[in-house]
Amino acid sequence: MDSHAQAFDEIWAVIGDRLSTRQADRDLHGQSETWHRAPPPDAVAWPETTSEVSAILAICNRHRCPVIGWGTGTSLEGHALATQGGLVLDMMRMNRVIEVRPEDRLAVVQPGVTREALNTDLRATGLFFPIDPGANASLGGMAATRASGTMAVRYGTMRDAVLALEVVLADGRVIRTGTRAAKSSAGYDLTALMVGSEGTLGIITELTLRLHGQPEDVAAAVCAFRTLDEAVACVAMTMQIGIPMARIEFLDSLAMRAVNQHAGSDHPEQPHLMVEFNGAPATVRSDAEAFGEIAEECGGQGFRWATSPEDRKRLWEARHASYWATLKLRPGATGVVTDVCVPMSELPAAVAAAARDIAEAGIVGTIVGHVGDGNFHCLLLIDPQDADELARAKAVATEMSRRALRVGGTVSGEHGIGLGKRGLMQEQHGEGWAVMAALKQALDPNGILNPGKLVPDPA
Amino acid sequence: MDSHAQAFDEIWAVIGDRLSTRQADRDLHGQSETWHRAPPPDAVAWPETTSEVSAILAICNRHRCPVIGWGTGTSLEGHALATQGGLVLDMMRMNRVIEVRPEDRLAVVQPGVTREALNTDLRATGLFFPIDPGANASLGGMAATRASGTMAVRYGTMRDAVLALEVVLADGRVIRTGTRAAKSSAGYDLTALMVGSEGTLGIITELTLRLHGQPEDVAAAVCAFRTLDEAVACVAMTMQIGIPMARIEFLDSLAMRAVNQHAGSDHPEQPHLMVEFNGAPATVRSDAEAFGEIAEECGGQGFRWATSPEDRKRLWEARHASYWATLKLRPGATGVVTDVCVPMSELPAAVAAAARDIAEAGIVGTIVGHVGDGNFHCLLLIDPQDADELARAKAVATEMSRRALRVGGTVSGEHGIGLGKRGLMQEQHGEGWAVMAALKQALDPNGILNPGKLVPDPA
Ligand SMILES: Cc1cc2nc3c(=O)[nH]c(=O)nc-3n(C[C@H](O)[C@H](O)[C@H](O)COP(=O)(O)OP(=O)(O)OC[C@H]3O[C@@H](n4cnc5c(N)ncnc54)[C@H](O)[C@@H]3O)c2cc1C
Ligand SMILES: Cc1cc2nc3c(=O)[nH]c(=O)nc-3n(C[C@H](O)[C@H](O)[C@H](O)COP(=O)(O)OP(=O)(O)OC[C@H]3O[C@@H](n4cnc5c(N)ncnc54)[C@H](O)[C@@H]3O)c2cc1C
Repeated sequence: MDSHAQAFDEIWAVIGDRLSTRQADRDLHGQSETWHRAPPPDAVAWPETTSEVSAILAICNRHRCPVIGWGTGTSLEGHALATQGGLVLDMMRMNRVIEVRPEDRLAVVQPGVTREALNTDLRATGLFFPIDPGANASLGGMAATRASGTMAVRYGTMRDAVLALEVVLADGRVIRTGTRAAKSSAGYDLTALMVGSEGTLGIITELTLRLHGQPEDVAAAVCAFRTLDEAVACVAMTMQIGIPMARIEFLDSLAMRAVNQHAGSDHPEQPHLMVEFNGAPATVRSDAEAFGEIAEECGGQGFRWATSPEDRKRLWEARHASYWATLKLRPGATGVVTDVCVPMSELPAAVAAAARDIAEAGIVGTIVGHVGDGNFHCLLLIDPQDADELARAKAVATEMSRRALRVGGTVSGEHGIGLGKRGLMQEQHGEGWAVMAALKQALDPNGILNPGKLVPDPA
Repeated sequence: MDSHAQAFDEIWAVIGDRLSTRQADRDLHGQSETWHRAPPPDAVAWPETTSEVSAILAICNRHRCPVIGWGTGTSLEGHALATQGGLVLDMMRMNRVIEVRPEDRLAVVQPGVTREALNTDLRATGLFFPIDPGANASLGGMAATRASGTMAVRYGTMRDAVLALEVVLADGRVIRTGTRAAKSSAGYDLTALMVGSEGTLGIITELTLRLHGQPEDVAAAVCAFRTLDEAVACVAMTMQIGIPMARIEFLDSLAMRAVNQHAGSDHPEQPHLMVEFNGAPATVRSDAEAFGEIAEECGGQGFRWATSPEDRKRLWEARHASYWATLKLRPGATGVVTDVCVPMSELPAAVAAAARDIAEAGIVGTIVGHVGDGNFHCLLLIDPQDADELARAKAVATEMSRRALRVGGTVSGEHGIGLGKRGLMQEQHGEGWAVMAALKQALDPNGILNPGKLVPDPA
């Protein structure tokens, strides 16, 4: 704590008691949703304006004090842990929806607005923001991790949703990337460079987001399958035929048991797909029929339709809660969560292999996924005291990543790299990882922004 | 020419007579589609493999010899002119479609494959590649300029179409960016950084492209309006209501005259929209009806439907040929082409202002555009000998750009920066332009890749 006392004195002069070195505040900002652990940061700051962020970064840059951005702390790979100490910058007081322009289908928000808060704000406009990670994350954090969710199969990820950013660089300079136009060919795509950079290139202080019109009609359903293979084969066929799914989610039998226990529902404990169709009523009908035929062909049974908005809400809330529901299967357990994405034709084999590996490792774990993208996750439940179990879970996760790489996929479809997957970056990117290091060095020569994450350590 | 003799000797040792310093070859690679002029390059090379490109770049980097990528040379802002001499790298011999994977909806191509060649190759698959600049450009050049076209309103631009790249860096290192998965959260988005970098960060030697399913049904139509304002108002309303247009193109009266003369058609010489709907037959019908109502409300007259595939082909060929058709309006003239993109709500005012400026400047010029994106172009016909006319045309183009910036738009929606709009980069990006310079410096410290374009000159 002492090591950055000078920096903290100067920051205190800027934001007063919105800087804290109290143990409770530090502990709260030293936690992680998953098994990753690190000592808490030396201090926490709650800036309220871009110029405060700029002043804080300039100070930290001068004093070589690490700065770690913090939204809702829901990232799954230890992204926001202060592994080298320093200051956590909690962005949640910058939580204003600055402007909504329905006629341009965009909203301008501060980074501490959550996805649910934004959608509440949009309710009267007939528009919505489709990116929905399971957690009610901050939009700044979602941009920083290039998050997606159940609707990415239709609406894309944060890569597609972010039109423009305001970013404070390591030295305190403020830049604006992108524009309010739908597309641009004016120079390097700094917006895309910042999205997914996990707080290592700059702190996001404003986002301009693309909105979408609420569909005229929506229908959702759950469908059970006898085997995991049949369910996943159904996904691959559906996507290859090109049915424009709004959502197509896979949950394995154990995940369904967890969902049942959590939500008090009585779905059979079998692999399931949860699907949604949207558009004009005729389209919804014909898409649903086309899907129904494929599902039947693949052995799908017992469609249950969620027709009322309340039923649909309940369905997707159950899906979103599956993480916490699964954790409850083994009280006291911690999660090793992993997330890969593969080309569609490789999905069935990849999911089947992951299921085999989990079983063989003797670990309790579920597989769920935004499978319409080729994206799926494992949640492996481990006893945090059991080093051997942790090692076995990590081995399963690593093998899943390596298998994804072997078939042309990626070690993360949406959760990101943080600490947990840094060891796989060289394998995935080869010389490209050195290029990332060069870009980092160009924008943050002192390495103060979220050090120890994503890019290699400076030479 | 002499200045890089040593580099050329070494390159000769690699590729033999696929290196040329003949005047005719140099002249051919020193031309520009528009008014931009520069002396020809000192030499031209036609590499056939990635390792040849790598060897050539390593040599040029050692000798500080500029290297300018070249596809079909159709870029409109002087992008590929060798303003500082050096070597043009003509990529058109790397023109193989390496792999098509219908089950993953992707194709892997070399950079010299043109968009038409790719679509010819895809014909049997039921898939197509939607990005269609007016010219039959190379896919490498299209990625380098972040090109789009008439279908971007539905399918996005090269930013969305490129899944992965192989890129040779200035020093000859070869990197692979992106993956074959639909999305990825594994580090900085190097693919997006390379797309739109106009040959200043690396030479693209392979592209993995996202394909789309051919729609079940397609309908296209032209519709005349009494005034430009009415036509553009119709576009804004259509997009704001959210009709999922496959194409919605604006052509002003003069452009329609040019199209008529070129294609032998007899459309009234009035502002027109050319539209296309696609999807399931019922969707096409209801979308077309919904659009028809808006068009009528806005004063649209005389819908003409192009129902047969041949009629549709003729329609879009006419649209694509509008550039050359317009040039023929004034024999001997050269074009000053400009391209801006604004938020939808600003489109009507922006187009109207551009029309006024062209009229007031006493210049013969057309306005056309992929207006569903808020993107439109002016083609100003000037006598290349008339310096005053050129100055007036440039002033019109500059004011169009500045107006776009004032309303939150961009100085280029799709053509790019090249030479022509470099003077506007500081205005658009402010400190962000310096950030682009820092990235350029990090990846190309000797500044050999397309020097004098896009980024500021090195300090
Ligand atoms: C139950 C559950 C389900 C989930 N489901 C999904 C899912 O379906 N899809 C998905 O993509 N993710 C999912 N996640 C992961 C998580 O929600 C995302 O990683 C989220 O995008 C992070 O947002 P946050 O506000 O919590 O950021 P944090 O965790 O606070 O921070 C994440 C990273 O972003 C940086 N950061 C935060 N704010 C800023 C800022 N303003 N500027 C710069 N950097 C910043 C941090 O330094 C850190 O590196 C899930 C998580 C949980 C717990
Ligand atoms: C009639 C007409 C209509 C047009 N309509 C449109 C339109 O609707 N939409 C649109 O977006 N554009 C349009 N354009 C512009 C043009 O087609 C694009 O700029 C095109 O994308 C450039 O491709 P090219 O192969 O001709 O590249 P070139 O002009 O040869 O090069 C363009 C730039 O890319 C670089 N480059 C080329 N190949 C590579 C490579 N392999 N690696 C790295 N850098 C490379 C060059 O150095 C240069 O900077 C039009 C042009 C014409 C003439």
